[in-house]
Amino acid sequence: MNFLALLTSAGINIGLCSLFLMLYSILRKQPGNVNVYFGRRIAEEASRRSNSFTFERFVPSPSWIVKALQCKEEEILSVSGLDAVVFLRLIVFSMRIFCIAAVACVFGILPLNYFGQETKHKSFSSESLEVFTISNVQEESSWFWVHCLALYIISISACVLLYVEYKSIARMRLVHIRQSPNPSHFTVLVRSIPKSPEESYSDSVRKFFQKYHSSSYLSHQMIYKTGKVQKIMTNAEKAYRKFMHLKNIAIDQKCISGIHRCCLCAASSDTFQLQCNDFELNSKKTDLDHSNSSKIEKECSAAFVFFKTRYAAVIISDVLQSSNPMVWVTDLAPEPHDVYWSNLWLPYRQLWIRRIATLLASIVFMFLFLIPVTFVQGLSQLDQLQQKLPFLRGILKKTFVSQIVTGYLPSVILQLFLYSIPPIMMLFSTLEGPISHSERKKSAAFKVLYFTIWNVFFVNVLSGSVISQLNVISSPKGIPTQLAKAVPRQATFFTTYVLTSGWASLSSEVMQLFPLIWNLLKRYIFQINSDQLSIPSFPYHTEVPKVLLMGLLGFTLAILAPLILPFLLVYFFLCYVVYRNQILNVYCSKYETGGRMWPIMHNTTIFSLVLSQIIALGVFGLKKSPVSAGFMIPLVILTLLFNEYCRQRFNPIFKSLSAMNLIEMDQEDEQCGRMEEIHQQLHTAYQQLPPDEIDFCSGECSGSHELHENEGSRTIQLDDDKDQTNDDNDCRKPLEKIVPVA
Amino acid sequence: MNFLALLTSAGINIGLCSLFLMLYSILRKQPGNVNVYFGRRIAEEASRRSNSFTFERFVPSPSWIVKALQCKEEEILSVSGLDAVVFLRLIVFSMRIFCIAAVACVFGILPLNYFGQETKHKSFSSESLEVFTISNVQEESSWFWVHCLALYIISISACVLLYVEYKSIARMRLVHIRQSPNPSHFTVLVRSIPKSPEESYSDSVRKFFQKYHSSSYLSHQMIYKTGKVQKIMTNAEKAYRKFMHLKNIAIDQKCISGIHRCCLCAASSDTFQLQCNDFELNSKKTDLDHSNSSKIEKECSAAFVFFKTRYAAVIISDVLQSSNPMVWVTDLAPEPHDVYWSNLWLPYRQLWIRRIATLLASIVFMFLFLIPVTFVQGLSQLDQLQQKLPFLRGILKKTFVSQIVTGYLPSVILQLFLYSIPPIMMLFSTLEGPISHSERKKSAAFKVLYFTIWNVFFVNVLSGSVISQLNVISSPKGIPTQLAKAVPRQATFFTTYVLTSGWASLSSEVMQLFPLIWNLLKRYIFQINSDQLSIPSFPYHTEVPKVLLMGLLGFTLAILAPLILPFLLVYFFLCYVVYRNQILNVYCSKYETGGRMWPIMHNTTIFSLVLSQIIALGVFGLKKSPVSAGFMIPLVILTLLFNEYCRQRFNPIFKSLSAMNLIEMDQEDEQCGRMEEIHQQLHTAYQQLPPDEIDFCSGECSGSHELHENEGSRTIQLDDDKDQTNDDNDCRKPLEKIVPVA
Repeated sequence: MNFLALLTSAGINIGLCSLFLMLYSILRKQPGNVNVYFGRRIAEEASRRSNSFTFERFVPSPSWIVKALQCKEEEILSVSGLDAVVFLRLIVFSMRIFCIAAVACVFGILPLNYFGQETKHKSFSSESLEVFTISNVQEESSWFWVHCLALYIISISACVLLYVEYKSIARMRLVHIRQSPNPSHFTVLVRSIPKSPEESYSDSVRKFFQKYHSSSYLSHQMIYKTGKVQKIMTNAEKAYRKFMHLKNIAIDQKCISGIHRCCLCAASSDTFQLQCNDFELNSKKTDLDHSNSSKIEKECSAAFVFFKTRYAAVIISDVLQSSNPMVWVTDLAPEPHDVYWSNLWLPYRQLWIRRIATLLASIVFMFLFLIPVTFVQGLSQLDQLQQKLPFLRGILKKTFVSQIVTGYLPSVILQLFLYSIPPIMMLFSTLEGPISHSERKKSAAFKVLYFTIWNVFFVNVLSGSVISQLNVISSPKGIPTQLAKAVPRQATFFTTYVLTSGWASLSSEVMQLFPLIWNLLKRYIFQINSDQLSIPSFPYHTEVPKVLLMGLLGFTLAILAPLILPFLLVYFFLCYVVYRNQILNVYCSKYETGGRMWPIMHNTTIFSLVLSQIIALGVFGLKKSPVSAGFMIPLVILTLLFNEYCRQRFNPIFKSLSAMNLIEMDQEDEQCGRMEEIHQQLHTAYQQLPPDEIDFCSGECSGSHELHENEGSRTIQLDDDKDQTNDDNDCRKPLEKIVPVA
Repeated sequence: MNFLALLTSAGINIGLCSLFLMLYSILRKQPGNVNVYFGRRIAEEASRRSNSFTFERFVPSPSWIVKALQCKEEEILSVSGLDAVVFLRLIVFSMRIFCIAAVACVFGILPLNYFGQETKHKSFSSESLEVFTISNVQEESSWFWVHCLALYIISISACVLLYVEYKSIARMRLVHIRQSPNPSHFTVLVRSIPKSPEESYSDSVRKFFQKYHSSSYLSHQMIYKTGKVQKIMTNAEKAYRKFMHLKNIAIDQKCISGIHRCCLCAASSDTFQLQCNDFELNSKKTDLDHSNSSKIEKECSAAFVFFKTRYAAVIISDVLQSSNPMVWVTDLAPEPHDVYWSNLWLPYRQLWIRRIATLLASIVFMFLFLIPVTFVQGLSQLDQLQQKLPFLRGILKKTFVSQIVTGYLPSVILQLFLYSIPPIMMLFSTLEGPISHSERKKSAAFKVLYFTIWNVFFVNVLSGSVISQLNVISSPKGIPTQLAKAVPRQATFFTTYVLTSGWASLSSEVMQLFPLIWNLLKRYIFQINSDQLSIPSFPYHTEVPKVLLMGLLGFTLAILAPLILPFLLVYFFLCYVVYRNQILNVYCSKYETGGRMWPIMHNTTIFSLVLSQIIALGVFGLKKSPVSAGFMIPLVILTLLFNEYCRQRFNPIFKSLSAMNLIEMDQEDEQCGRMEEIHQQLHTAYQQLPPDEIDFCSGECSGSHELHENEGSRTIQLDDDKDQTNDDNDCRKPLEKIVPVA
């Protein structure tokens, strides 16, 4: 691929990108799309649609960019929470570090690479992209110290910037924790409550906490089995009961009407009446028994336990409760909106197996995915393709077509395959059994991240086009050399990857292609005009890995093929604008993790840095520049030490809450007399069912409700629909009303 | 090496072993050696030496074996604590599993191996040992299912036995924790107390715990800098103060005598007197100031904090205290005798670097150790040795000599080198900065274990005699095949290793060679006859790795070369007798970890099992028996799953104390009214100095002592001598009395 092909590719992408952004700036002004582009705003403010037709609506304008840029960080923090801010900090960090890298590499290294060998240069446009990479520098050149210095500058600035970010995010997290009273701080999720033949789970929980933590125990709330299967069972049971009830009524009526007819037969009508009454009584009794026993059956061995202070809750969640670590497992509860209800009833004993199984499944999936990747790689080697599919030879001989096929198509196909990854990884993460949406998303993000790094970076780099070359990886010693050979060779592919995957994904993000199409279909084809608004939450599990992968490409290629850096910078700037806009207008944040994604981002950035240093080590080795190679080793060690320091210094804050903070917060609330109020709020904080069904249910279960209420526990028979739907496209259906039995 | 050579080797070792054991049975009856062989007993009972000369004293007798075997587990538990019992359980486990393995392999596999190929067998004695290994079985033999079945039997019985042991040890640990009140359960070690310019560390600690944990805080005790350097500094300071004091007295005297002489000069003698008094006053004042300020200076940023209940202490040790995880670091305190005082003042910020540095140092050391191992391996290839050292050719041609050189000498030399490992690893572990002796020993045990496994097993197996072959290890995929090729080849070496290293080390253990020689030297050469008794504590860091290594050899060679199993069984039986005897008579247990070594033992056994399965996989692969190889894979997975289950089920118990237990213990003590008494005992539980120096010190520091005592803190200016000496040869010197200043 030569420089012209790259420019072609860039041109196509710039064109497409501008087109999409212009389209967006028009589409967002259409009143019909307000649901798609201003979901969060609408949810916040009152709906203010004006259908007035103005010409202005069809003129593209950059005002949204200005608006997105003008918004301050505090505003975003208050509007979308800390998680969004942390994500934007990652983009800011990337912009900063790649600005530094671009200055150092484009002005320092690019000329060195270009004039690295004393060959006569062709015209600039038909120059192969190879001449801009480090491969063009002669062996044993005395200029490698520049590359070495540039990598030192990049690494040190990255570490400094990372430290600053980590520190400020940690501070923001502490402020976030200290803000408004959060019910999850007072609540502990207890799982694996031991089964006792004499008493219900609820009684066990009450007894346990009254015995061991009587001074801080407030109340508890049982969790009920509400999986898909359970729901079908419950419905079947209800239908059966309803049927029995109707049957009874029918018999009743028959009995009454039968008094007259009974004269015809020998039996006295009185006895019949009696029998009927008996039957009715019995059936009512069994009904009652059944509802009681089924309640106990459906109670699962998990409960939310509320405590009087935050400190008590955090203590109980941290400390090993029983001498059998598999029972009375305590964790700090997730935020009410964050609870993933349908996983709460999973037996705790299964979880470790589930975790291992999903890990294995993800790894197997990672390797199965090699097949499409190999195919994609085949496209960039046109000769092979022509051999296999000879009928294409004619078309492929045209320059423009071949440029598109080599420079553009592979990325597009890869991209299409990659679209299927997040849902699959999300499924794996769900099967793992996390207790909160955020944990599930975090786990999915982790899987998608390593999947992407493996399949986009390593497989492309190491395999070339043949899977069998993968054996290289099984010899760890040869990895630096192999990477050093392969990475510069694949620089072109990665540059086009930034252009296609990066830029295009941003356009599609801002356009909200799928929701837009769905919205159009809904309005014009299906003629649905529901007021039910679906506001998606931010898809961290797809967006964080994308940005981090771009960072990885930037770090590894910065000194090898600096030509990627300008494109990357444009990508990150677009990122900044687009995601700010999306966070402000489209996505709503239903729950908060308080920036728990940052350690993943930090660790991945360190991984990218170390990888780039190891590749540089290999390259310097190949180019016979032992001094430069030698200088890489302390850099690797220092980077790893820096990471370890950050892990020691900041990571515990992201894992648990500190006693000092919690106690101070408790004391403040105690002094202000807010504690009572908070305790009151706790009782209604965690609801396994939306509020409108509680009233119904509390009516249905009033008997048992009264039984428990005095003893400080709440038992609400609930059903969940909401978390079976994917929370990204949370199109909440109007809830089915279940007809009460009596 | 043929069968005869093995028998020679075995004969030599059996002879030596019997000789040593007989010698021991005589030596132990000598009154002079009572210190060596009955250290623990003497410490326990009153000294009861009788120098009466009887003939019986010089007759070898097996009575000690009978005594060692008769003793019950409860007795050992009460006498030497849980750690000793856990170690003996490891030996019992090994005996059981290798009994099963021996039955399965000697009767099932050995005949198969011997008649594996249709060659004519030579006379049994001159048969090469190769014919007893799996190498002798033909490729594609239909009999490999027997090997496969044997490995299944061994693995499953090992898992069952391990589970039973883990469960019973966990139960014993819980009983152990619930026994007598342990001051360490009430105590938290606080490190990295933040420095404040206004107040001393002691005040900071008091303020912090009174503010945040006022309901449970009892008192605290500061820790003082007492390293070697600090001691020299303190002594120098004392000497300086003493000198100043003497000088003042001298000036004083001069002044008094000067009154007469002053008439000679113009100045009035009164002024001189005045000046002297001024000087004296000043110097006294600075003395006082200095002692105060130096006290604050020498206070280091660590303290033991005592709490009212066990539960409070465990909570505070578990929960993150400050929002900066590098300050107010809390850990549950070790037992009073277990505290490693000279590490307590290490700045907490250093510890992570120290840990990384020692890890790297151990790894480097592991690779440096290859040099002697390579030399040893050279010996077993006699041809190479003869080429290098031609003058040996004459000697080596003699059959007996060559048999000794190939069969015996390599192990002996390796053994001698291995003697230097535990002290070096102990040094590394000390530098790591553990806060307790037990932790230091555990860390050293870990290092010695992996060192031994690496250098004795892997290097011998994989390198043969050339280090360059080590490159094999850098390709993880080839490991099973490489191991499968190499392990049967080295079976002979390992069999002799069991004979020499195993049996001989037991003889030397029971003989207590070094203490015996030292005792003789002391009595007859140096004529020292001190009553100061040195009772060593059990050297877990040397003995546990030895036993585990034998287990590793047993598991890996069981189905490959079953001839090793009888020798191993003898080894373990000897182990059982010898260690029971030593634990009962020689070693004393100053502190207890409550069986914390068991998880290491469990994990290593699982590692050995999995390794043996992987090697079997490789062997079946090489022998072209794909069905058997296929059957190995589920076995590996099941073993790993079993390990994961044990980790989930039991490991947390060995890491922390459960709230339920602690609260029950607290409640019991509260109800019995024992709590007050326990709190009283806490004040004297942790002493940085032996008691006889406290009196002196409390006199010296009485001023500041009074200052703090009312506020619930104790400040004792202490000096430690005891933990600078190696606790294995804990020859406690009579403590130097420091002359008080005034």
